[in-house]
Amino acid sequence: MVPLRGIPELEEGDDLGALMVESARTTGLEDGDVLVVAQKAVSKVEGRVVHLSGIEPSQRALELAGETDPRRIEVILREAREVVRTRPPLVIAETPHGFVCASAGVDASNAKGPDTLVLLPLDPDASAAGLRERIGELTNREIGVIVSDSFGRAWRRGTSDVALGVSGIPAIVDLDGQLDSSGYELHATQIAVADELAGAAQLVMGKTDGVPAAIVRGLRLEGDGRGRDLLMPRERDLFR
Amino acid sequence: MVPLRGIPELEEGDDLGALMVESARTTGLEDGDVLVVAQKAVSKVEGRVVHLSGIEPSQRALELAGETDPRRIEVILREAREVVRTRPPLVIAETPHGFVCASAGVDASNAKGPDTLVLLPLDPDASAAGLRERIGELTNREIGVIVSDSFGRAWRRGTSDVALGVSGIPAIVDLDGQLDSSGYELHATQIAVADELAGAAQLVMGKTDGVPAAIVRGLRLEGDGRGRDLLMPRERDLFR
Repeated sequence: MVPLRGIPELEEGDDLGALMVESARTTGLEDGDVLVVAQKAVSKVEGRVVHLSGIEPSQRALELAGETDPRRIEVILREAREVVRTRPPLVIAETPHGFVCASAGVDASNAKGPDTLVLLPLDPDASAAGLRERIGELTNREIGVIVSDSFGRAWRRGTSDVALGVSGIPAIVDLDGQLDSSGYELHATQIAVADELAGAAQLVMGKTDGVPAAIVRGLRLEGDGRGRDLLMPRERDLFR
Repeated sequence: MVPLRGIPELEEGDDLGALMVESARTTGLEDGDVLVVAQKAVSKVEGRVVHLSGIEPSQRALELAGETDPRRIEVILREAREVVRTRPPLVIAETPHGFVCASAGVDASNAKGPDTLVLLPLDPDASAAGLRERIGELTNREIGVIVSDSFGRAWRRGTSDVALGVSGIPAIVDLDGQLDSSGYELHATQIAVADELAGAAQLVMGKTDGVPAAIVRGLRLEGDGRGRDLLMPRERDLFR
């Protein structure tokens, strides 16, 4: 796992693929590498940034905000397809993509100041595919790309990074029907490898170091999945 | 990340620490390494194995079993402090440790045959501490140990490995009050590093290769946490 350093503060329209290739110059990129890039970096170059100055909070946002800025809650509500749970000012929501997460993925802490919020990319799978294609053009390498974000979990403290968007690698490796080492059949063993890769990369990316991406090298992963493969279908959801 | 290969099928009383040190002979162990070992390996050497032959299913087990073996459901119910959700034959339960997971952590697929179930260790933090101490005796190295297991997630498909037991490293790294790269304060950024390490190790351990452990090298993690640090306190649980 190699963190990609030296990527400058990003603005809408920046060529993130080229910046990551430049940052990876020493390490290089090899066929089969997986590049994990933080959602916030992707959102910034895609212009998914909102300034609080123009936001008028609704009555519901005022109710949920508690002591916090109701304009922030208003932005969260606008990004939510469904509010799943609230404990003011905590809002857990389903996004239009189908992610269930705190604040509908809206994030405040960033270099653009406290009055600027970063939203999730509109289509993280498309973001991952676009970066993969751009990096392929620049390097002639076949890599996988994951767009990652930090999610909380229902019954566990702390966040773990997961894959919002995936391209060029599987999201889930399905061991259904494969035999374990004793010859007994494994049942329903589907491993969310893209989430595990996102979490692994987070360990070297950190939160405070300005390292928006990392390369994971040396795994052999065959297939081409999507971040949306990781969404639990609504009919199998036991917790709403 | 280095998988530890060549560890034989384990029996109660085996010296798992010594077997892992032997397996790591080529790579060696260094101060600061994190050794991630699968719960199933730990449970086997601790004798946490149940044969179905002596199990009499209760009425509730018969109701929940559907077409499956009700004795297996009975074992799950006995391992559960509270049944959280059921969709026969799926049982999601809280264990006495406080883990909320499928089948109360009871696992079937293993080399001992279809009539043998493996239960979670009674105290995974103590298991991790014991292995850490044993490996310290044998190698004079200060390592961290994680006892890991594959858990499902409420709103995401597939499993991701998490840390049940932890010793010698933090379970959560708390960035509360640290400044991000722009100087703005980060709020409530607690990263479940032990879970991310468990997931990272799973990527090289696989499920079918008989690789029950892996070493993660090169991270600087200061502190000494516990797996129980990762449990969401009941009063903050929004999903039961």
